[in-house]
Amino acid sequence: MKYEEELISTKKIYQGKIIRVEEEEVRLPNGEKAKREIVRHHGAVAIMCVTDDDKMIFVKQWREPLQRITLEIPAGKIEANEKNPKKTAIRELNEEVRLQPESLDLIADFYTSPGFADERMLMYFAHNLQPVSKELPQDADEFLNTVELTLTEAKKQIDAGLICDSKTIMAVWKWELLELRRS
Amino acid sequence: MKYEEELISTKKIYQGKIIRVEEEEVRLPNGEKAKREIVRHHGAVAIMCVTDDDKMIFVKQWREPLQRITLEIPAGKIEANEKNPKKTAIRELNEEVRLQPESLDLIADFYTSPGFADERMLMYFAHNLQPVSKELPQDADEFLNTVELTLTEAKKQIDAGLICDSKTIMAVWKWELLELRRS
Repeated sequence: MKYEEELISTKKIYQGKIIRVEEEEVRLPNGEKAKREIVRHHGAVAIMCVTDDDKMIFVKQWREPLQRITLEIPAGKIEANEKNPKKTAIRELNEEVRLQPESLDLIADFYTSPGFADERMLMYFAHNLQPVSKELPQDADEFLNTVELTLTEAKKQIDAGLICDSKTIMAVWKWELLELRRS
Repeated sequence: MKYEEELISTKKIYQGKIIRVEEEEVRLPNGEKAKREIVRHHGAVAIMCVTDDDKMIFVKQWREPLQRITLEIPAGKIEANEKNPKKTAIRELNEEVRLQPESLDLIADFYTSPGFADERMLMYFAHNLQPVSKELPQDADEFLNTVELTLTEAKKQIDAGLICDSKTIMAVWKWELLELRRS
């Protein structure tokens, strides 16, 4: 079976600071034409941070698209000039939680919304976190606090809906998997 | 600490069939102004289907935003006229894998990309799947096949990158959690 679609034309709709929007016309495997609405994004990183006393670090912040406060693991966009996503993760950890990891392991590499967006996210596990020696300036439009939760508390916050995004639920579930395998 | 942003104005950028794009001007907690780029989406469902012989059902399809073939769990958009997301899940299961669940349990409720999109996804676990008595017509622009994988095979496909989206990795990790708890 043939699955591929063939690009006929691309119409630029919008160029923002974070996203670009395009309308594509494609040729389907059966020869028919179809339209695709696509959001282009430069990609992002997210980081699982577990403290020595077995708590995960979350960032509490306002999410304008959702009109609500959320608890999410530290994360951020890969800037246009950043070629190494681990460096993005180290920068975001400094800006958001003021911690420096000794090393980062890649835990997952995924697209957040493959139906309409190309945003790719790399999720890392941070080892041996220490306070940063030099604090980077925080984004001028970000207002956030950090919150530390045990696994049991984090699972309660998923049920309560304060933890409500895919990467953060993934991080909690992966943490639970690691704990179960260890026990 | 105050986190909330206050909406000053909304500019409509694009109204597609699947997404709507808006630019918001907001007042930050410190009184400054900032711009927010927001993709509006009507929401979606995804379904974990595990067969009697312990295989999960995936859909193989082309994803134009990613320019690649993926393996994902069955999923689909909530249509404007659909008020009950369980009915959306039953419709999508019929269209994509020709199966009818006896019941559906909500496993997770999350936003896929809270930084720029309001897409909310409800993930269900399907119980007692049976072939449908009446096949619904498939979407004219969807070309897909189903693939069944054991947990070990599914984890290999995550490593190989064919399973590469957040909801599907979540489904495989949750499946592993359920198996570990059972053993």
